[in-house]
Formats: sequence, structure tokens, C-alpha cells
Amino acid sequence: MAAGIKYATSRGTLILPVIFKTNQPMPPAPHQTHLIALDWGTSSLRAYRLGAHGQTLELRALPCGIMQLPAAASGDKAALEADFEAAFEQACGDWLRAEPGTPVIAAGMVGSRQGWLEVPYLEVPIAVDRIGASLSLLRNRHGQPIHLVPGLIENAMLPNVMRGEETQVVGVLNALNQDTAETDVLIGLPGTHSKWVQIRRAGKLCQLAHFDTFMTGEVFAALSGHTILGRGMQAGEGKDKDDAGAGQQAFERGALVARSAAGQAGVLSTIFSTRTLGLTGVLDGAGQREYLSGLLIGHEIAALQAMLREQGRQPSQVMLVGEAGLCARYTQVLRAYDFGAVEVVAQATERGLWQLALTAGLLKHA
Amino acid sequence: MAAGIKYATSRGTLILPVIFKTNQPMPPAPHQTHLIALDWGTSSLRAYRLGAHGQTLELRALPCGIMQLPAAASGDKAALEADFEAAFEQACGDWLRAEPGTPVIAAGMVGSRQGWLEVPYLEVPIAVDRIGASLSLLRNRHGQPIHLVPGLIENAMLPNVMRGEETQVVGVLNALNQDTAETDVLIGLPGTHSKWVQIRRAGKLCQLAHFDTFMTGEVFAALSGHTILGRGMQAGEGKDKDDAGAGQQAFERGALVARSAAGQAGVLSTIFSTRTLGLTGVLDGAGQREYLSGLLIGHEIAALQAMLREQGRQPSQVMLVGEAGLCARYTQVLRAYDFGAVEVVAQATERGLWQLALTAGLLKHA
Repeated sequence: MAAGIKYATSRGTLILPVIFKTNQPMPPAPHQTHLIALDWGTSSLRAYRLGAHGQTLELRALPCGIMQLPAAASGDKAALEADFEAAFEQACGDWLRAEPGTPVIAAGMVGSRQGWLEVPYLEVPIAVDRIGASLSLLRNRHGQPIHLVPGLIENAMLPNVMRGEETQVVGVLNALNQDTAETDVLIGLPGTHSKWVQIRRAGKLCQLAHFDTFMTGEVFAALSGHTILGRGMQAGEGKDKDDAGAGQQAFERGALVARSAAGQAGVLSTIFSTRTLGLTGVLDGAGQREYLSGLLIGHEIAALQAMLREQGRQPSQVMLVGEAGLCARYTQVLRAYDFGAVEVVAQATERGLWQLALTAGLLKHA
Repeated sequence: MAAGIKYATSRGTLILPVIFKTNQPMPPAPHQTHLIALDWGTSSLRAYRLGAHGQTLELRALPCGIMQLPAAASGDKAALEADFEAAFEQACGDWLRAEPGTPVIAAGMVGSRQGWLEVPYLEVPIAVDRIGASLSLLRNRHGQPIHLVPGLIENAMLPNVMRGEETQVVGVLNALNQDTAETDVLIGLPGTHSKWVQIRRAGKLCQLAHFDTFMTGEVFAALSGHTILGRGMQAGEGKDKDDAGAGQQAFERGALVARSAAGQAGVLSTIFSTRTLGLTGVLDGAGQREYLSGLLIGHEIAALQAMLREQGRQPSQVMLVGEAGLCARYTQVLRAYDFGAVEVVAQATERGLWQLALTAGLLKHA
């Protein structure tokens, strides 16, 4: 039988001969999958099909976050297990059938207590290389191995945890200019729960030294949606959105509150000014929303800055990862608070998953 | 016909003769109404029938707060007007028919933009006596005069407002020991929106000098009901409530966070520990609720203390007005933060309304 690749066409089966030299491995096809990388969080599941150099060949975003699965709140373990299997199949079942044996890595809340398999946290401070060397193995019902990335915990008076962001941190470090390998880096991951991660670097050692969490995004949503502050914001909802300048001014006004004398009252007090600046006619509904956004981010950055000063650390480099609009807001506030160079890093998640798979030895041909 | 007071008894009508000297006014009957005092807020309407010395003869609590009226959100002004008339009739229509001409005073959100009649704010700082001298007159459809108490505004970089609390402040001052008339007083009104009011006293002058608002109560409700922090609290809901000691410990633990080094991260960050202390098994669901309550109140009191220190003021007397359980929580936290004597004042609202009516000259016979 002739060696070749068979294609089914409308005119019958086409066989293309394949010619290759003996004793040499077959060169990878340009679109061959080297890694299936899953970013599996609370609200969504993103599946990346990555090529020979970690480049994204295909991306799927599914509404299958671990809290969105049909059996998520049921307490029915068997049903939840079936949901995870089904979501996994939907995300990459066909990719695996097309190229069996492709390694699979997954990060995020899929490794939490409410996830598919609980993966113990690693303790901070930690050498960043240790993360990729500590993946946990899960097999689905077809025996397909799935390598889960551990989250991180910092056991302090107020413990701190992350799941998923550690992967983005690895991705950011991978993107860093190696010329600056002696400097400390501050990595910010704004979102529902912002994380601020301190990286210390000395030669080959790269340590994740400390991190903080701010619930800024979720607090903004709760205040806007479920307190009297949101009632005032509705007043502007019917208006034309042509007044971007006014919105920008309101955001800046809010952002600077935390560094003013009045900001000493703390965020439980200053947020009330969202309402009173509406009552006194200074801010319209849309302005109140922008003001509160700036005010909360400003309090976050002011507190971060105070802590860094207390620790005697002023990072020379700030890297941000997150949704573009949110990163622009944070960049603006960081500049207002005299932070130095701020850089936004794209594709940190897929870069991180690739790097972790590499460290774990999952990429045979890389 | 014999002059006398008739009483209907089971054995017939009893007539008691009343003897009085001519040329002297008839002494007031022991239950004669001297003032109808309304505490008309956002969620409820409390109507007090007050006697000759301001004592409460009768109290009605109605679910007729200005945001609870049927037409409150409709934008239909005529319908809303009718709602106010109906609520007023329900609160005290029969009292007025029984004793026509009784003066009526009302404080709270009834005088706001969403109320029955918008009453302009008075500006802080202000001599406390000025409040009672500045009531606004509203007449209902029967021509009944209703005297509305103005709210207060402090025009600062972050403006501050109150409506209703100014009346409680007047009530607290009325209850104060006059021997201490030279000392400054700090009045705390914990609730959905806590107010902290600074009173300066020198001889006959009593000035409301400054106040702050903290949205602590509403933030607690929004975080518990509408963020991930509430999800962890639900774990304890089915349990027996026999572990009051553990709840108390969790509350104290939370209350002390703001004064610890970790508290420097600010409340947007420290609240996340509610979740992580649950994840690490330190706090059960009920404990997380108590912890968050303590944590938020602690941040409020710590910020208040920092501001007072900045201003060079350490009040010798702290007076609290509010729901008893909440005042107990605040008292505990104030003591933990080394505030001096803390006293809880009861019946501040009715005392305040009485005092304001007196200042306004509404009480002819008092």
C-alpha cells in the first residue's frame, strides 16, 4: 500500500504521496498543534490551540466557566463531573481527535475546590520556575491527561490567594526584556479582583515575593448595582454619549480624591461624594459612574503606593495585564500617582500556559 | 348640663365633676396631645403623639417611607402627592380630628427632592439653635400646617448632606448633662449611612461644626448580598446559632484589622480576607459574616480617629444614637480603638422633634 495522506473529496478519495528522508523526523506541518491550553475561570473557558512556537492557531471562548456549568450550584458531584467532561469536549474534543497525543494544560478556577480537581496552592514567596514544575495530573473519561496549574497562597495575617493570575505573571515575565533582569517588577492584573504581584529578580533567580488583592471591580459593580449610588447614575442613562470629555474629567476628579486631604476618610466615606456631587449638580448620572470608577481605582493605587513606600520599594517597571479599556484607566491613575513607566502586556495567558508547559516538559518538540 | 368628664363603663355612663377656678385656663388633660412629630425617612414613617412634657403618648410605625410610596418611582407628581396625603392621614389624621389645631412637625427625607416638599439645606458650620428657627411650612389639602425640618449640607471638596440626623443631634444635645457644657462632643449615628457629627460648645453657643458620612451599613449589605463574599457566608446558614462566642471572636478579629499593618492596604483589599479566612478554614460561614461586619466598622472608626488626630481633636465624650444591637457593635469597636466614654442615647428623634418645635415657637403651652 502506498504511503500517503488520504483526503475524502466529492470525487472520491485522493491520496497524496508523502516523501521524506529516512532517519530524520518529519518536519511539523505549519498548523500542527503543539499544545492545547485552557484558561478556565469562574465565568468563562478560553481554549487556545497553539503552534510550534506557541503562536495561537485557533481560539475558542465558551460560556463554560466553572460557576456557569448547569450543575455548578446543585451539589450533585456526578452531574458536575459530566458537565466538566462536556465542556472539555466542546472546547477541544475535535482538536484531540485530529491530533491525538497533543498535550493539554489548564489554569484557573478549574483547579479550585469548586473545580474539576482541587489542586493544592503553592506557597508564596516562590521561585517562579517552581510553578511549571508542580502541575497536577487529571485524566478525563477517555484517559486524556490534563495538566492543571496550581494556584498560589500567601499565608499572612490576612491570607491571599490567586488561581489563574500566576499563569499570566509567568507570561508577563516571559515577555520581559532580558536586559533588565536585575530590576524588580510590579505586575498589575486589574479586573473583578485586581492582583498586584511583586517580582524580585537577581541573575537567574526570579522570585514571586508578595502579592495583594483588591476587590475594586466587584465593589464597583456592587455599589453601582445595589446601593443608592447607582440610583443617581441612572439619571444619565438616556443621554447622548457625546460628552466623553466630561466623563474623562469626572474620572480624573474621582481618581485624585484618595491623594487629597479628604481622601483620608477612606473609601467607605469618600464614595458618598458620588451622591452629593450629583445632588449639588456637579456631576450628571454618567459623570457619577465615571467618578466612582476613578475614585475606587484611585484608592487602590494610593493604598498600593503607601504599602510599597512602607516596604522601601519603588518598582522601576510596572506591567499591566487585562482588558484594554481597564488597563487604560489604570495606566492613567498610575501616572497621576507618579508611578514610573507603565507597560500593557498582551497575550499573557497563552504565553504563560506555553511557558509552564515548556517548564513541565510537556512540549517534546519545542 | 353638669360640667364634667363622661366615661362610658359597663354599668353605664359615669360623670366625674370637674371643679376649676374661673379666670384660669383649664389645666391640660393628662393625655392631651401637644405635638404630633413625624420621623419620615426613606423606608419608614414613625408618628409620635407627644404630651405636655414631650413624653410619648402613642407611637405608630408605618411602612410609608418616601421610597415605599406606590407612586415613588413613577414620576407621576399628582399620584405621589396623593400618596403623601394618604400616608399623612394614616399616620395622624384621627389624632388631628380628635384635637384640631395640634401642631405638626416632620423631619427626614420628606423634605428632600423626592419628598413632599423640598426644603433647602442649611449650611454647616451652624449654631444648633438655627435649625429650629428655620422650619419650612407645608399645608396639606385640608389646610393643616406641617412644619418641615431642614437638612444640613457641608460644602467641601467632597460635599456632605444629612436629612433627619440633624434632629437626632438636637435630641442628643437636649439629653446632655449641662455641667459639661464647655466640652466638645462627638455624636455617632450608625446605620445604613453612618454620620459622625462634631459639636463645639462654649457657654451658650453650641455649634454643629463638621460631619462625616460612612456608607458602612449599605456597603455591608451590598458586599454580603451581591459579591463572592456572601457566597462563603451562606455555608453557615443552616447551622445552629449556639456559637455566639465564635461569632464574637470573628467580629473582634475583623474590627482590629484596620489598626494592624495589613490594614494599610485599605478596605478594598482587606475585605478579600473574609473569603480567604473561609478558604483556609479559619472562619465558617457565620464567622465570615461577623468578621466582615467588624472589619468594616473597624475601618470606619480607624479613619474617623485618624481625621480627629489630624484636626487635633480628641472628643472627651462620644454619644451614639441608633438601633441597640448596632450601637453595641460600635461601642465595642470604639473601645478597642481607645475612644473615651461612650454613651448610647435613647429616644433622640422624639426629643429632637420636641426641642425643634419648642425653638420654633410651635408649643404654645409648653
